[in-house]
Amino acid sequence: MRVLVVGGNGTIGRAVADVLAGSHEVLRASRSDPDLPVDARDEGSVRSLFERVGRVDAIVAVFGEMHFGPFAEAAPAHFRTGLDSKLMGQINLALIGQHHLEDEGSVTLTSGILGDEPIRFGANACSINLAVEGFVRGAAVDLKRGMRINAVSPGVLQESWDTVGSFVPGFETVPASRVAKAYLRSVEGAQTGQVLRVR
Amino acid sequence: MRVLVVGGNGTIGRAVADVLAGSHEVLRASRSDPDLPVDARDEGSVRSLFERVGRVDAIVAVFGEMHFGPFAEAAPAHFRTGLDSKLMGQINLALIGQHHLEDEGSVTLTSGILGDEPIRFGANACSINLAVEGFVRGAAVDLKRGMRINAVSPGVLQESWDTVGSFVPGFETVPASRVAKAYLRSVEGAQTGQVLRVR
Repeated sequence: MRVLVVGGNGTIGRAVADVLAGSHEVLRASRSDPDLPVDARDEGSVRSLFERVGRVDAIVAVFGEMHFGPFAEAAPAHFRTGLDSKLMGQINLALIGQHHLEDEGSVTLTSGILGDEPIRFGANACSINLAVEGFVRGAAVDLKRGMRINAVSPGVLQESWDTVGSFVPGFETVPASRVAKAYLRSVEGAQTGQVLRVR
Repeated sequence: MRVLVVGGNGTIGRAVADVLAGSHEVLRASRSDPDLPVDARDEGSVRSLFERVGRVDAIVAVFGEMHFGPFAEAAPAHFRTGLDSKLMGQINLALIGQHHLEDEGSVTLTSGILGDEPIRFGANACSINLAVEGFVRGAAVDLKRGMRINAVSPGVLQESWDTVGSFVPGFETVPASRVAKAYLRSVEGAQTGQVLRVR
């Protein structure tokens, strides 16, 4: 299959691209990619990306910023960070990408453990992650041509523990290589509307 | 208690205001209210509202537009409808409202059954409703001064069946008067971070 991985330069993105490359043609795109640059928050940028890559069998989104900070100090503008990036960025990719997917193609998005396990400073993340999961649940029943859509919900990454560990005390970690397998499961699998949790 | 009900002129809003008025001072605000007009999508409008009403013991949000339409025809702009209105509108109210709430005050937001039960044309609603529930889950663990936050998830309203029934075939309905009780449960109760489903 031809698989487009958007966010292919992040910790999970690289692991996903590596796993998929074992049996698929992988196209990596990201904000900083020299060949396939894309800012998924920008609808026009997403359209340009698909004009360049043409038709694909699977779209994988592994990116998204969110706001972390005390609720008492949070302003609406902070909440826009996650809405514009991790939520609308992935929605832009799915809405526009469906028209560039082959029949029975798939979309795999990324939510995260902070949707299930709220943490201090994490209201934005909790909301955005569940929004992604709701989008997948709702889109799955309305996609045509046998297309599928799922989300992978990664746990706390082993590779990120040094930087994020103090915000998620007591959480177990998972290596990016294990998380990557869930994306492969979604791309090659038959399920739709599911959240694949890796804990 | 002094309870601010935003969206107090809708079907649920009126029922909620009526139920609460039995034992509380209710302030109704809405986009069309002559005394307390507010457009919750607009941060400035929400700030003005709180400047007018002063401190309250409870904030209840019962409003929000969402986009319904075939997924194949949905554009990012359609998805912005729900994000700006039902999601950011309620988030604006909670983020700004927390600073105008008395100690141990509460915020009660509204999600909906379409977060749990996806329907054709309903990806926006499914995503937005779960985003509201995630926001409540995340905010609850980070609110200070004993403040609480919950969401009520109404089923399909009996009163709306004639207009929406064909989109939700086989769904059971609930009267607005039953839904209203869940808001009272949240306002007078002790729970936080919960989704009160009325089915």
